[in-house]
Amino acid sequence: MSTEVIGIVAGTCTALSLLPQLVKIIQKKEARDISLFYLIVLLAGLSLWVWYGILRKDIPIIATNVTSTILNIAIIILGIRYKK
Amino acid sequence: MSTEVIGIVAGTCTALSLLPQLVKIIQKKEARDISLFYLIVLLAGLSLWVWYGILRKDIPIIATNVTSTILNIAIIILGIRYKK
Repeated sequence: MSTEVIGIVAGTCTALSLLPQLVKIIQKKEARDISLFYLIVLLAGLSLWVWYGILRKDIPIIATNVTSTILNIAIIILGIRYKK
Repeated sequence: MSTEVIGIVAGTCTALSLLPQLVKIIQKKEARDISLFYLIVLLAGLSLWVWYGILRKDIPIIATNVTSTILNIAIIILGIRYKK
C-alpha cells in the first residue's frame, strides 16, 4: 500500500470520528455537553496541521485536515446556536 | 517558526482535545454517552497516522499521534469498564 493511501485512510478515519458529534447536535438540537474550549483547541490543532501539510507539501495531511476543519467549524457554529 | 514546531503544536492541540472526554469518564465513572464504534474508527485513524509518520520519517506526526493513540486506548478501556 502506498504511503499516500495510508495517509488518506488515516485522515479519513480521524475526520470521520468528528461526525457522530455533529450528527448528535443536529438530531438533538441541543449542545449542552459540548465544550467550546475543547472545540477551539481542536480547531487550532487542525488548522495548524493544514499549515504543516502545506509547508511539507503533504497532500494527505492537507486534504484530510481541511475536511476535519470544516466539520469542526460546523460543530462550533451549531454548538453556539444550540448552546442556549 | 520551523515546520517541526508547527507540527508539534498542531499535534499537541489535537491530542489535548481528547483529554476532556477522558477526564469526564474518570470523574463521572460513567460512559453511556461514549460511542465505542467512533472510538475504534479514531483508533484505526490514529494508528495509521503513526504508521504514515514512520514511513515519512516525520517525527511530529509520530510523536503526537502516539500520544493521541495512548489517550484513545485509555478512553476505550475506561469506556468499556464503565459502560455497564
